[in-house]
Formats: sequence, structure tokens, C-alpha cells
Amino acid sequence: MIVEKYKAMLSDKSVIRQLSEFATERGKEIGYENVYDYSLGNPSVPVPQEFTDAMADMLKNRNPMELHGYSPSLGITSVRERIAASLKERFGIPYTRDHIFMASGAAGALAHAFRLVTEPGDEILTFAPFFPEYHPYVDLTGAVLKVVPADTQNFQIHFEAFESMLNEKTMAVLINTPNNPSGTVYSAATLQRLSDVLREKQKQYGHAIYLISDEPYREIVFEGVDAPCVSSFYDHTIMCYSFSKSLSLPGERIGYVAVNPACGEAEVMINMCGQISRGIGHNCPPSMIQLGVAEVLDQTADLSVYETNMKLLYEVLQELGFTVVKPGGTFYIFPKALEEDAKVFCEKALKYDLILVPGDTFGCPGFFRMAYCIDTDKVRRSLDALRRFVKEEYR
Amino acid sequence: MIVEKYKAMLSDKSVIRQLSEFATERGKEIGYENVYDYSLGNPSVPVPQEFTDAMADMLKNRNPMELHGYSPSLGITSVRERIAASLKERFGIPYTRDHIFMASGAAGALAHAFRLVTEPGDEILTFAPFFPEYHPYVDLTGAVLKVVPADTQNFQIHFEAFESMLNEKTMAVLINTPNNPSGTVYSAATLQRLSDVLREKQKQYGHAIYLISDEPYREIVFEGVDAPCVSSFYDHTIMCYSFSKSLSLPGERIGYVAVNPACGEAEVMINMCGQISRGIGHNCPPSMIQLGVAEVLDQTADLSVYETNMKLLYEVLQELGFTVVKPGGTFYIFPKALEEDAKVFCEKALKYDLILVPGDTFGCPGFFRMAYCIDTDKVRRSLDALRRFVKEEYR
Repeated sequence: MIVEKYKAMLSDKSVIRQLSEFATERGKEIGYENVYDYSLGNPSVPVPQEFTDAMADMLKNRNPMELHGYSPSLGITSVRERIAASLKERFGIPYTRDHIFMASGAAGALAHAFRLVTEPGDEILTFAPFFPEYHPYVDLTGAVLKVVPADTQNFQIHFEAFESMLNEKTMAVLINTPNNPSGTVYSAATLQRLSDVLREKQKQYGHAIYLISDEPYREIVFEGVDAPCVSSFYDHTIMCYSFSKSLSLPGERIGYVAVNPACGEAEVMINMCGQISRGIGHNCPPSMIQLGVAEVLDQTADLSVYETNMKLLYEVLQELGFTVVKPGGTFYIFPKALEEDAKVFCEKALKYDLILVPGDTFGCPGFFRMAYCIDTDKVRRSLDALRRFVKEEYR
Repeated sequence: MIVEKYKAMLSDKSVIRQLSEFATERGKEIGYENVYDYSLGNPSVPVPQEFTDAMADMLKNRNPMELHGYSPSLGITSVRERIAASLKERFGIPYTRDHIFMASGAAGALAHAFRLVTEPGDEILTFAPFFPEYHPYVDLTGAVLKVVPADTQNFQIHFEAFESMLNEKTMAVLINTPNNPSGTVYSAATLQRLSDVLREKQKQYGHAIYLISDEPYREIVFEGVDAPCVSSFYDHTIMCYSFSKSLSLPGERIGYVAVNPACGEAEVMINMCGQISRGIGHNCPPSMIQLGVAEVLDQTADLSVYETNMKLLYEVLQELGFTVVKPGGTFYIFPKALEEDAKVFCEKALKYDLILVPGDTFGCPGFFRMAYCIDTDKVRRSLDALRRFVKEEYR
């Protein structure tokens, strides 16, 4: 018999996907260039030419049996070495290849991280606003995701709520900085305080609490913003990285798990990832893509468009009287809606061909997300629609 | 705390991997060309040039944002369409894209298939000799893998044993034809009888029993051998395919799940695969690789070397008095050892630099596997070693 649990999920349609489908349909009517589609977090700039060149070169010059051969179960050794060296150089943490596991994007990395440190019934705490896929990612492992209410003042951490929710079943804390959907970057002070609390609770409960740091937006940080390395603050950190956003290749499913060598069991944990893979049908990211990203590890796509777009939106949102925290990175902004129910607000915006996502989806009602990974020209053209929307509906 | 279940698995080293590592070490001493390494099932011929050309062409001419963009969660629609059309044309089963789910190789396809139709505690039956990874693949889902003893006469199905093991908890039967490690292809008579038994038991138990057909060797079938399409025999068939062996790109992790449209819930099951993915960190095989294989769907690497190698080995094994079933496909052969304990037999073979894998690993003690996906020249040179081994140890 087919399994009801998964069948039941089919009726539960993602709000973001529905909005994106609406945008596509509307585009057929009025031309997609006239739909101000802020729904999807899809990179809007091309992969660096060096990646394309490296891939073409490998196809031309490498032995195809090597190029397309099985990767060792933890990832291609030379690739793990290069990633470790790059992280060490950049963050001053003594990573070696033994602390790196190659994964299929952030989703693959998180799937391994959750299974490393939780068993069914254990709790993972995360902070609103948060990426809604965390729910199926965690829930389907049997662990329980609990969401700490947002610090809606500046989208750092609501520590009072956090401390009251920590308990003996908390085996991991999941953070995402720079953050989807708020665009906020956790400050050094936030990370310091978070680590202090966790160290104290580890002692009190007599077991490790792991910090799972989901960092797909690490390279998208705006001018003047300090984006500290999470692992530097806390020994028991499992970094989950994806190249999807930094290199603009989300479809190629490539990332890694990096366990902080200071945590004591890092090598064992990386080896355990290889075992976890066997149970979830993983067996490594594609060899060719591993080799390709290794050639451009310290490069990014031209990410400057996101900051340009952010500035345009932030200025007009302020001008229009929105309460809005200035994003420190990513390609998201998360203003407060102009009425209590953000779903109603976003529904009204559709009349102006503005596709906005209600914050409810991110565990933060009353706010809305704009994913501004779109052409700057479209952002500019959307500003008038935004002005009209606010004027006609809320003045 | 880190999870003991996975940590404990680390001490349980794969026999095949140990032998392969031994072969590599020995190669450092005497030159790898002198080690007759029959341990690993790795394709030994290059990917078709057309695949390489198609990939190079896409890198050069396609919009990188499209090429490397997110794939829909069930796979790229055009790719699913082409696969369905190819299967329909070839096997006469009315597949459409709605019956196809793109997966990361056979491991990824099986991970979805098991979760589609079993819950923890349910039983999956498979037949010895079998691919040893089936154990972690199934066990880690919480379902229970039960192994039906081998039909050691011809490696078809031991029906008496099978029928005695079927019970109300049996939700799926897992087969692999052409088979790793025996090289046997299930005959039409075997598949007909298997289907008849399953249909009867479905009625008796009042629930569906799915046939999960793991088919990575489907394209490696030798002259004169009839390799019937499993799905044609049984409506409730979930085909799990991988391009790893047919196209010689095992590292690129690409395959698919095809649910027989006749099973009644095929479309729902394919959609469920997209939900299962969220829990196991899957999120589709890489876009670029999906698009690449779609260009060479009806091609294969030059697989003829495997038949050449098989014939050389089969002839000499017969000449030396081995009991051996002639393989119908794959790149494996599975003779009976010349003494009761195949582990001792394989241990002795190491003295002759012959790397053979004891059948115990495949649930079939007393036999051994040779993976002859190696240069024909090395196969030829190994024959003398084989002759000396048998003569000196067993005459």
C-alpha cells in the first residue's frame, strides 16, 4: 500500500509555489516583464565564466572514466582538500579534508546534519522568520522542529523566548545567517550570546547541543556589514554550505558539510555522513560538478545586482512609511505589512501585479517577503506599482 | 549527542571495499596492471562521445541561468517526457511524463521506492544472491529486508522458499535482473510465475504488494539472451533505473523511477516522490546531467567488452571444472568456489594476485563474484593466474 504520510502532504501546497505559478499565469496575459514577481529565491545572475570554462575543459581533456567515475562516499578527496584549505585560509579554523563531506546542496547537507545529531523525538530549535522547508526536512526524520518567535525589532534572536524553549530534548539549534527571509545577518554579539547560552545548557543537560549553521547566503553580504563566521564562536558547529547562490547554479545541487574540528568528534561525524548517505539514497554529488566547483572555490557570480536592488527597494519602502529592517545580505527583504493580516495585504498587492509572500509562511505573521533576485530594470519599474498600491489601498 | 546507530556502522567495513583497497595497495608493490582486480563493479568503457558533445554544446550555447537553474522537484519536464516516450516505444507500456520521477542514480531511485510503499516494520523480500547495499538502503528506512535463499542451480527464483516467506507484512518484493552478482537474467517464465504468486497473495492479504525492479544492468544483455521487461508482467511494478552502467557515468548520479501506469495510483506515487525528497535532502539530480542524458537516451557506451570478457572467463572456468552458470548480462560472473568456505578460497586466490569476492557478502556462501569490467588484456593475462591457482591449490 502506498504510504499515507506522503500522500497527505500533496494537498498541502506551498504558498510560495502557488504565488510563483500565479505569476507565470499572469505573465501569459500581460507579458511576464510586467509581473513584478518577488516570489522565488532564484539567483538572477549567470554562473562565473570560469566555471563554464573549467567544465568545458574537463569534458575536452580529462579521461571520461575518471571524470564521470564514482566519487568516494565522502566526496572527491582533492575537492575536500581544496574546500578545507579555502575555509582555513579565510576563517582561520584548522579544517582539513577530514572535516569536509560533499553534499547535494544545502538540502543534502542539512539532511545529513540532522541525522548526525538527532534521533526521533529529539528537538531542534530554530528562529522565526525561517525557511519553511525546514519543517519537512526535520519532521520527516522523526525529530521535532520547534520555532522560537521572532525578534521583530531587528530579526536577531529573541533570547528570552529562546532560553525558555531550550530543554533536555534539545539536541540541535538551527540558524540561517544571512537569513532567508529577513536578509538579516547575525551580529557578533548575537552569535556570542547564542554560544554562551548553548555552552551553559550543554553543561546543565550533560550532553552536546550542536549548532547547525545553514549558510547558503554566506557570500551575499552588503557593503559595510560584518558577517562573522558562525563556527568561530562555537566548537559544536556543523556548517552546511551550498554553492547554489554564490555561484548561481542552484540546479546543480552542490554543497558540503564542514564540522568544526574543535568539536572533538569531527572526523567520526564526517565518516558517519557516509553511512547516513546509504540510508537516504545520496551517494555523493555528481563527480563532474564537484570537480567543477573546486576550480572556482573562491569566486562568486557577480552578486552586486542584489545590493543595487536592495537599495532601491529599501529606499522606497522607507519613503512609503513601511517598518523595515535594512538587509545585511541575501536577496530578500522582509517589511511589515500595512495591515495586520499580511495574507490580505499580499492578496491586495496582486491587483498591482506585485507578487509578495506573506510572512506567515516563514513563521512570522504580519510581515511579507520580497525576493529581489530579479532584473534591476524590473525592480525600478515595480516601484511605481508599489507606490500606487500603497496610495490607493492604504491612504 | 552524535547518533550511535551511524557510528556503529563505521566498524562494519565492506568486504568489497577492503578487497579493492588491498588491490590498490598491492598495485603499488607490483604495478596495478599485474593485480587481477575483479573486486569492483565500475564501468570500464568511456561514456558515449555524444554525451560529451551534448554537454559541451550546452555549456557553450545555453543560457547559464536556465542550464544551471532549479529543476522542478519531479525532474525537468522535457527530460521526463523523453524518457517516457523512449520506454513506451521500447516496451509498449503507455508511460507518460506523469509516471517518471528523476532520481540520483539507482540508490536515489530505490530510496524513493522503498518509502513509497513501506512504513517501519513492513517487510521487503529480496532474493539471494543480492547487492549487499540493499541492507542499509532498506534497514535505515525502518522497513525490514528479508532474503529468500538462492536457487543455486541457475539463480532464477527459489519459489518454494519465496512462498513460505511471503506474509501479510510483505509490502514489496525487490528484484535485480540482470543480476548483480550472478549475471543471471530472469526468464519470462520466472517473471510470469513471480507475478502470478504476487497477484494471488495481494488478493489473499487484501493489500497491494509492489514489485520494485532495480534495473541498472538492463542494457548489458548478451547475445541470444531474452531479457523481458519486468513491468510488462505485473501492474504494481516500480522500475528503478540508473544510467550509471549503460552510459558509463556512475559518478554523475542519474536515474529515474518509473511507476507502471497500470497500477492505478502511478501519478499520485510520482508526486509523492517529490514529497519524499524533501525528507531525505534529495531535490532532484543536477539539471545539467538530466539535460545531458536526455540527449543520449537510446544510446549506450560500447558495452561489447563485457561480453568478450565473460566468454573468456566462462570458458576457462568451465575448463578448470568450476560449477558456473553462464551470465546472461551485467559484468559479473558467480562461480561455485572449489572448497566449502568461499572466504578461504578467495583468501588463497590473493596469493596469485586474483581479487575475488566471497559470495557470503551477497547472501550466497560457497560462491564467489568476479566483476570483469576491466581491460580484456588483463582478463587474458589473469587466466594463467587462475589456472595456476586452481592447479596448485586444488589438484
